[in-house]
Amino acid sequence: MSFVDRVRACSVFDPSLYKPFLVDGFRVGLVKPLFADHLRAFPKTFVVSDDSVTLSPRLSDFHKRTSAVGAALRELADNGLFGGWRDEPFPVATSPASPILFNMERAAIPWFGIRGYGVHLNGTVGGPGARHMWVGRRSMDRPRSPGKLDQLVAGGQPAGLSLRDNLVKECGEEASISPDLAGRAVSVGALNYITETEEVLRRDVLYVYDLELPRDFEPRNTDGEIDTFYLWPIERVLETVRDTDDFKFNCSLVVIDFLIRHGLIEPDHPEYLDLIHGLRSGS
Amino acid sequence: MSFVDRVRACSVFDPSLYKPFLVDGFRVGLVKPLFADHLRAFPKTFVVSDDSVTLSPRLSDFHKRTSAVGAALRELADNGLFGGWRDEPFPVATSPASPILFNMERAAIPWFGIRGYGVHLNGTVGGPGARHMWVGRRSMDRPRSPGKLDQLVAGGQPAGLSLRDNLVKECGEEASISPDLAGRAVSVGALNYITETEEVLRRDVLYVYDLELPRDFEPRNTDGEIDTFYLWPIERVLETVRDTDDFKFNCSLVVIDFLIRHGLIEPDHPEYLDLIHGLRSGS
Repeated sequence: MSFVDRVRACSVFDPSLYKPFLVDGFRVGLVKPLFADHLRAFPKTFVVSDDSVTLSPRLSDFHKRTSAVGAALRELADNGLFGGWRDEPFPVATSPASPILFNMERAAIPWFGIRGYGVHLNGTVGGPGARHMWVGRRSMDRPRSPGKLDQLVAGGQPAGLSLRDNLVKECGEEASISPDLAGRAVSVGALNYITETEEVLRRDVLYVYDLELPRDFEPRNTDGEIDTFYLWPIERVLETVRDTDDFKFNCSLVVIDFLIRHGLIEPDHPEYLDLIHGLRSGS
Repeated sequence: MSFVDRVRACSVFDPSLYKPFLVDGFRVGLVKPLFADHLRAFPKTFVVSDDSVTLSPRLSDFHKRTSAVGAALRELADNGLFGGWRDEPFPVATSPASPILFNMERAAIPWFGIRGYGVHLNGTVGGPGARHMWVGRRSMDRPRSPGKLDQLVAGGQPAGLSLRDNLVKECGEEASISPDLAGRAVSVGALNYITETEEVLRRDVLYVYDLELPRDFEPRNTDGEIDTFYLWPIERVLETVRDTDDFKFNCSLVVIDFLIRHGLIEPDHPEYLDLIHGLRSGS
């Protein structure tokens, strides 16, 4: 096992196994043929052909699309086609700066291979030589990656909230970090990947933040996502990512990026350039 | 002008205008047909065809290749085909971890489109809110990018020296930074690009380091590369990279990466993901 195995676990993807999902002429997602077949039940919403899944051109604006897609997805979820319904609308667009074509329930995003966005925060205590990192263990009742290790704070990016506001909200819910303390988090970059995991296609951009916490800070989870928090020496975090797959697949990338940015994985590491490339190999 | 213009200036490249340069079956470089024609004068060393330039298979080991290529290049340089001869052997390999196929004079590396490696150091004073960055103005007598702005320390990676040892050496020569102080530099990642500039193809990996310097530190150049050093507020560095092309083309990338890693370009910047992608768009 090695760091590069963590990166490879985030690039399990064969484009030939998917049909493009087109909205208003833009390719916004990738759908498996088996799932596409279920969409044939909604011919007024989805036009399914051998080569593609197209949102009906009749659905010509944000509201019509959001409403028609929402109704179809609700029925598919009720029929057990996918689980984890959260009632969280996620924006569908060709890029974060582009107009939002419609909103889609978060649980359906990876079934359509639509690009998702999230915020991940590395919470650390102490500087070089004595650095520790807060790590969360995900609750066993989570639909995704139960029991896996996670960043101190991480969450999907919903519609209608700025990245900063979402980060502050997640900091409060996931770790009881005050808005004032969360405001000191520094944005340090973004990672991306495209990978099949747990049956679906995750095609995500993760916006990454570092936050140095006071020594007396104690995280407390309020939304049920995290079961236990640990404050580990950074060397233990490094060894855990390198030697095990205990971290949730995408959280490993965030740790590896942290280790590279803080000189804890150095350029003489034989996988150095492969790791750096692999942290941003999605499309 | 904008940050993205700086990134675009580092990706001026049309592969159809080049012939691959092959050594021992590996594609190690890219050569313009006009330059390839000059290599026809050395048929025992270079086999030039319509599709490729191949190092003669007769040259079967490191020493034979280094010696034969060196002799040909010396003659081409004497005939004025390229300038800037430095007597610095650079390693040619398919990757930094692969065996070195041969050494080539540094000045010829971009004429063959061979991947080069360098170390760049961001030297700063003060923390968030009051951060300053040391910037060097390159001497007017430099063969490359005379008068352009540069990092405090930057240098190519020669054969036979570790990255760390090269960084310490360059820190001493370019800015009179003691080995002890240089040893505190933190490796923070690597950038790469492939671009035509000043007639040649630059295909480089830059290993980036951050070093926070004491307030009383004053750089002093000893190798003639830098004419003047400035200690600028980071906002001035940001504006200069964003609004002008005063920085040497690749040094702009190093600054943009610094600004992203330290939260000075934030994710709400409309070009954020394009910049992050563009900082590592070489191959």
